[in-house]
Amino acid sequence: MTLPNTLVLAAVRSALAEDLGLSGDITTEATIASDARSEALVVARQPGVVSGLALAEAAFRELDPSCSFEVAIDDGEPVFGGATAARISGNARAILSAERVALNFMGRMCGIATLTRRYVDTVAGTRAKIVDTRKTTPGLRVFEKYAVRCGGGYNHRFGLFDAILIKDNHIVASGGIAEAITAAKAAAGHMTKIEVEVDTLAQLEIVLHAKVDCVLLDNMRPADLRKAVTMVGGRFLTEASGGVNLDTVREIAETGVDLISVGALTHSAPVLDLGLDFVTQPKKS
Amino acid sequence: MTLPNTLVLAAVRSALAEDLGLSGDITTEATIASDARSEALVVARQPGVVSGLALAEAAFRELDPSCSFEVAIDDGEPVFGGATAARISGNARAILSAERVALNFMGRMCGIATLTRRYVDTVAGTRAKIVDTRKTTPGLRVFEKYAVRCGGGYNHRFGLFDAILIKDNHIVASGGIAEAITAAKAAAGHMTKIEVEVDTLAQLEIVLHAKVDCVLLDNMRPADLRKAVTMVGGRFLTEASGGVNLDTVREIAETGVDLISVGALTHSAPVLDLGLDFVTQPKKS
Amino acid sequence: MTLPNTLVLAAVRSALAEDLGLSGDITTEATIASDARSEALVVARQPGVVSGLALAEAAFRELDPSCSFEVAIDDGEPVFGGATAARISGNARAILSAERVALNFMGRMCGIATLTRRYVDTVAGTRAKIVDTRKTTPGLRVFEKYAVRCGGGYNHRFGLFDAILIKDNHIVASGGIAEAITAAKAAAGHMTKIEVEVDTLAQLEIVLHAKVDCVLLDNMRPADLRKAVTMVGGRFLTEASGGVNLDTVREIAETGVDLISVGALTHSAPVLDLGLDFVTQPKKS
Amino acid sequence: MTLPNTLVLAAVRSALAEDLGLSGDITTEATIASDARSEALVVARQPGVVSGLALAEAAFRELDPSCSFEVAIDDGEPVFGGATAARISGNARAILSAERVALNFMGRMCGIATLTRRYVDTVAGTRAKIVDTRKTTPGLRVFEKYAVRCGGGYNHRFGLFDAILIKDNHIVASGGIAEAITAAKAAAGHMTKIEVEVDTLAQLEIVLHAKVDCVLLDNMRPADLRKAVTMVGGRFLTEASGGVNLDTVREIAETGVDLISVGALTHSAPVLDLGLDFVTQPKKS
Amino acid sequence: MTLPNTLVLAAVRSALAEDLGLSGDITTEATIASDARSEALVVARQPGVVSGLALAEAAFRELDPSCSFEVAIDDGEPVFGGATAARISGNARAILSAERVALNFMGRMCGIATLTRRYVDTVAGTRAKIVDTRKTTPGLRVFEKYAVRCGGGYNHRFGLFDAILIKDNHIVASGGIAEAITAAKAAAGHMTKIEVEVDTLAQLEIVLHAKVDCVLLDNMRPADLRKAVTMVGGRFLTEASGGVNLDTVREIAETGVDLISVGALTHSAPVLDLGLDFVTQPKKS
Amino acid sequence: MTLPNTLVLAAVRSALAEDLGLSGDITTEATIASDARSEALVVARQPGVVSGLALAEAAFRELDPSCSFEVAIDDGEPVFGGATAARISGNARAILSAERVALNFMGRMCGIATLTRRYVDTVAGTRAKIVDTRKTTPGLRVFEKYAVRCGGGYNHRFGLFDAILIKDNHIVASGGIAEAITAAKAAAGHMTKIEVEVDTLAQLEIVLHAKVDCVLLDNMRPADLRKAVTMVGGRFLTEASGGVNLDTVREIAETGVDLISVGALTHSAPVLDLGLDFVTQPKKS
Repeated sequence: MTLPNTLVLAAVRSALAEDLGLSGDITTEATIASDARSEALVVARQPGVVSGLALAEAAFRELDPSCSFEVAIDDGEPVFGGATAARISGNARAILSAERVALNFMGRMCGIATLTRRYVDTVAGTRAKIVDTRKTTPGLRVFEKYAVRCGGGYNHRFGLFDAILIKDNHIVASGGIAEAITAAKAAAGHMTKIEVEVDTLAQLEIVLHAKVDCVLLDNMRPADLRKAVTMVGGRFLTEASGGVNLDTVREIAETGVDLISVGALTHSAPVLDLGLDFVTQPKKS
Repeated sequence: MTLPNTLVLAAVRSALAEDLGLSGDITTEATIASDARSEALVVARQPGVVSGLALAEAAFRELDPSCSFEVAIDDGEPVFGGATAARISGNARAILSAERVALNFMGRMCGIATLTRRYVDTVAGTRAKIVDTRKTTPGLRVFEKYAVRCGGGYNHRFGLFDAILIKDNHIVASGGIAEAITAAKAAAGHMTKIEVEVDTLAQLEIVLHAKVDCVLLDNMRPADLRKAVTMVGGRFLTEASGGVNLDTVREIAETGVDLISVGALTHSAPVLDLGLDFVTQPKKS
Repeated sequence: MTLPNTLVLAAVRSALAEDLGLSGDITTEATIASDARSEALVVARQPGVVSGLALAEAAFRELDPSCSFEVAIDDGEPVFGGATAARISGNARAILSAERVALNFMGRMCGIATLTRRYVDTVAGTRAKIVDTRKTTPGLRVFEKYAVRCGGGYNHRFGLFDAILIKDNHIVASGGIAEAITAAKAAAGHMTKIEVEVDTLAQLEIVLHAKVDCVLLDNMRPADLRKAVTMVGGRFLTEASGGVNLDTVREIAETGVDLISVGALTHSAPVLDLGLDFVTQPKKS
Repeated sequence: MTLPNTLVLAAVRSALAEDLGLSGDITTEATIASDARSEALVVARQPGVVSGLALAEAAFRELDPSCSFEVAIDDGEPVFGGATAARISGNARAILSAERVALNFMGRMCGIATLTRRYVDTVAGTRAKIVDTRKTTPGLRVFEKYAVRCGGGYNHRFGLFDAILIKDNHIVASGGIAEAITAAKAAAGHMTKIEVEVDTLAQLEIVLHAKVDCVLLDNMRPADLRKAVTMVGGRFLTEASGGVNLDTVREIAETGVDLISVGALTHSAPVLDLGLDFVTQPKKS
Repeated sequence: MTLPNTLVLAAVRSALAEDLGLSGDITTEATIASDARSEALVVARQPGVVSGLALAEAAFRELDPSCSFEVAIDDGEPVFGGATAARISGNARAILSAERVALNFMGRMCGIATLTRRYVDTVAGTRAKIVDTRKTTPGLRVFEKYAVRCGGGYNHRFGLFDAILIKDNHIVASGGIAEAITAAKAAAGHMTKIEVEVDTLAQLEIVLHAKVDCVLLDNMRPADLRKAVTMVGGRFLTEASGGVNLDTVREIAETGVDLISVGALTHSAPVLDLGLDFVTQPKKS
Repeated sequence: MTLPNTLVLAAVRSALAEDLGLSGDITTEATIASDARSEALVVARQPGVVSGLALAEAAFRELDPSCSFEVAIDDGEPVFGGATAARISGNARAILSAERVALNFMGRMCGIATLTRRYVDTVAGTRAKIVDTRKTTPGLRVFEKYAVRCGGGYNHRFGLFDAILIKDNHIVASGGIAEAITAAKAAAGHMTKIEVEVDTLAQLEIVLHAKVDCVLLDNMRPADLRKAVTMVGGRFLTEASGGVNLDTVREIAETGVDLISVGALTHSAPVLDLGLDFVTQPKKS
């Protein structure tokens, strides 16, 4: 479970540019000596799951390539409130100027990992996997999908390009579910999976006769989900979607579906409250 | 209250590239005719405040430059649950392929505007302005700060480069508040404002003797905030920060502070639930 | 079968920049009036299959946005030697300066489409589909894979990111085929297909017990390919690879494999000879 | 004979991004330990001329900055079938994920160098230099022109910007060869060379009276080329072009022309078959 | 007083690309051995103030990462004619190929710093600070504003985005000075300063009743400037602008204004004549 | 004499981004109605030569694509003090926000064209052409070389990549002038010109025996220049360089040299004073 270094660097550099502009951190430059050194801790102010250490490290290292960054609690691991996730030591100006960017990335990613973990824990013991959606923050999808995996969830397709998901509009435009599936199969390469969204058991009946990889059961009540699972009988995967929250997810999981997709993982997870605590105040080296 | 077109285009193109990859929307291409046309509505599924129409429009227009996009409810206006915010008409493939990017931007921005409005309404009648922080999503700060304004809030400094905000570390490194302010004034251009963060009234006492533009009263209880406001006596602006939520913000505002900064506006606003409803299913032109 | 406009534009602009540098087409600027107009034909100097018209059009239009570009023979259609594929009319400087970029793109893409068609025609009547590989020109994969489709071929996975293909090194590192497949399944999202490469029928025997989407039969003789097809019995797809050329592909196809992948489609297709014939020499408008 | 490092890095990063997308090499990540190490050889599967080692090295080093890359046979040197051109040792994931990009670059460049060498060898003993054209792969011209030099060839102008080459359309638009040359001289800086294309000896006669740097004798039969060389008498350089292939190039060279330009060097050279052989399978460090 | 490293690198890389193109320094590559080494001095050919060492160093280091670059006279320090500002030792090709880019940056920046110093020295003993304007070279503003600081000057706002400066057109469009100031205050965040331009004392009278941060006294004669300073009485800062040159600046400064802005600092400073003297000619290592 | 549109757009967009940042022109947005319209003139405040209209137009059009921009005096034409060079009509916010970028480009380019014209006029009647150098502003070389042509000058090589210029270091490293020329000829393609710099007539003597395209006579006194011209006798071009200013250039030109290169054209030309005069103040449309 790693993040490509080039993506991490690009995201961090762009975020630093946004915060520093062309003039830089004018407060820090005015008040901290250029060779002052400091040591600081990334501390969780509430319990959660760690995610995004590579981005935090890259932010500090971008401004001080020789700083040290020691991980105390790895991505995917739980963190208690008050616990230290990482320790940074290096140029004081660099630490202060990169602090907000580092925390902005980690806070969001820890927030997603933490919320994912709550869903995963809630369905423990069932066969259901918690999966994400394309309802991610523009520009940050790769990091948010990684955070979902840190929380124990699984990833749905990455985007529109790497798998086929036939929805209602595609069905109407094609003249029916069977026709849409036929069209998709004709166009798809042999390494591309096909999933179909259905709203009713009647629609599902049609899909049973076509060979697809997965069916998305949209906004069905648990009773219907259970019937759907029985109808499919393991021929392909079943995914429940719509109306999923921490109160309903257990009941949905117990219907026997293989997958439950949850948009809230990435579109509405509150940030995990993190802070940077200075162990040693800036001092000259 | 406008967003520069070049920033809108850059953000939308980057988000479309993320979702479409190099292969594009393979489902839509397989199932929808290239010249099919459609009409759809951006509908709010819950009440809130509109923000981000320019990004939604740009997303659709990027894939169909000749599509029509009519705004029903403008940025900054309230929207009821079920109400239509905008109407799109154009190439069906373009509408389907841009849908998620458009909604991902608008959902987040409406979410921020909606939450901001709640804070603003809660402090109505006091002198306090609700302002944002630098706790924004990396890469999206300009849009999130715009969304705050749509919700009736005000913007703090944009980044580290356009104003001086002296925090505890700067103070320690400078050898004291007075020294830090002196250093900042010596370095700052005449068009740069200076704000100082204090944790105690004792610290505030020192600031009173220095001429700054604003003081940030960090994590003070309402009683202390009230004393601080009295001590300052209008010499410069007062900003309250820390421990602000919808339950506490009214009491804080009633202390008489000029500004209340709220990180949650941008770091933890849940998305506003929006959907794209097709008025006419894809049809050939 | 379309190419996203943003990718076309990016590739064309980069190629024009490479050819024009910062000083531009100094010959044309010195000898052709700035308002001279001309009309020219893209002519095939040998028979083949058309591909890449969108890139040629974009090259001309980039330098003269108001030029006309009429397609005579569409992408995917056969063209005779001497036949006109497209007709351009517009600013003479623009046509001359964009000519080489337009033909460099189209020549390569027509070359790939033409070679693909020869393979496809050679296996006509068998069940085998001709598919491409990742042996493409760096930076041009999306266009070369499109050209393969223009020639009647199919696309394998786009890159390392959109499907799993377990090769010998992965197998050795995992401790065996079964172990590698297990590891891949644990990591893969539910929308990701899995293919395994085997060199022997003994290896294939192991794969039969694991549920994968496709098996790549590498460098097997036709007799073994035939046995492999029988062993698989339709449980998953079979792909032949290695030692494929126009002399051998028919025999391979007749073994009953579902797919034959051919690196030469994209790594060694000779360019299709195309020229730009001026119907009317540059003249002042 | 070197390639600027910044161009090498840019090309390699772009190619890796194309192959890895945002999700990376999902097969390798699933099956190879993150700290496994391996050693592998770049082996030529057929005889040829080496070119492009810097791009291969950069590809591996981009994913594992601390890998070792030892060159066995340098760019420009001949390689036997089965011989090792380079040896890589480093992180196993990095080697596997960069393999295809490294080979895609080197295979094409070795192919061009190898074909160039065949032309150069064929004209050995004559005064003719083999030169390339602008019929290069979009985006890769600098690398392909370098590969031509590796094969013993010479480079024509780089693009439209660094030298003047007056062709038939420029002549017609200017009202004649003499007029075109006059116009070019008036516009050209004193460091810019001028070449003129002629189709007949009658046209050449006119050029003799103008002072140019080179004349391009287009599609002339050997007998006419010989006459042309005599007419020019060393006043300026002579370049033969058109109808050049390995069967005709010797006869053309023997006419005494200074230069023979060959489009096929870069537009139709088959790839040189290269492979990556693992000396040691991936193992933990 | 530092320049962000990322901005330095980006500017230097862009300038090197402009000078080296895709083919590189063909003279140096033809005549200097790839492993030759050399040592050279950056020498001032006339007296001035040093600025831009970081850009020179980056230019050399970009082409030879292991070169040594020792600063003899720091940015902001005076340099005599004939004195050495820095010493470079490294790969001879790298030094020769980067020389012009390094000197182009430093020459311009030293020129600005030197001219600024002359203005600063001319107003010595008065309260006036010399400040720059937005009349900078497109793309180089951050470096030119830095050079102004090296010369002892101060920076005005960086651009249109970081402070409000109300000019005549804004006043006319708003219906008057008071109205413009009111509009600006309503829109401005609390960390944004406001300056107003006035042409007459009558206009200044109006501004006195509004609370702004600074007033720009445009093209006023010294007598009026003196009156204006008296009228303002320290309520806010006063800036003189227009008709400022080395002959007039002292008289303007003696009127008591706080700031004098000088466009010529950045738009018309002649380059400082710098050269690269080779201590040791290129030799093999 | 045109500037490629893509280069113009890229430069203008970058300059606007520098001035507008992410927040935009906050003064104009606060005080001018979004639909106000205005008309303004680009007026020369002193006499000179026009250059850079395309960049000014692009700046205004970038912010208001539908604005009108009428040229009154074309690039390369003389302008009197007080004369109007162009007239803009369009959205008032766009005109105000783009004003400084437009004038910053045009002022510098007109300054270069104006200074070049003075040199050209000073040598009128001699055979000498005035040429530029590589002492240009980083990032703006293509525009500055264009401005030189607008002033009646000629361009030297564009950069290090498009011609060979052998200087003293190259000579020393090669072991002598003859050796350096031999090395350069062996490496150069047949479309690349070669110039050699000499400091003495003794060095020139050696060059006479080698066939080069031009000799640069560096820092020679007029008497020596005259001797050098005689020695060369038209065999190749002669270029004088060093110690050239408006006082010395006529005497240098009268020595009979073909070219005189002047670094000051681009490194020290003062800006031409231009202003934007509003014909109609911003008004609502």
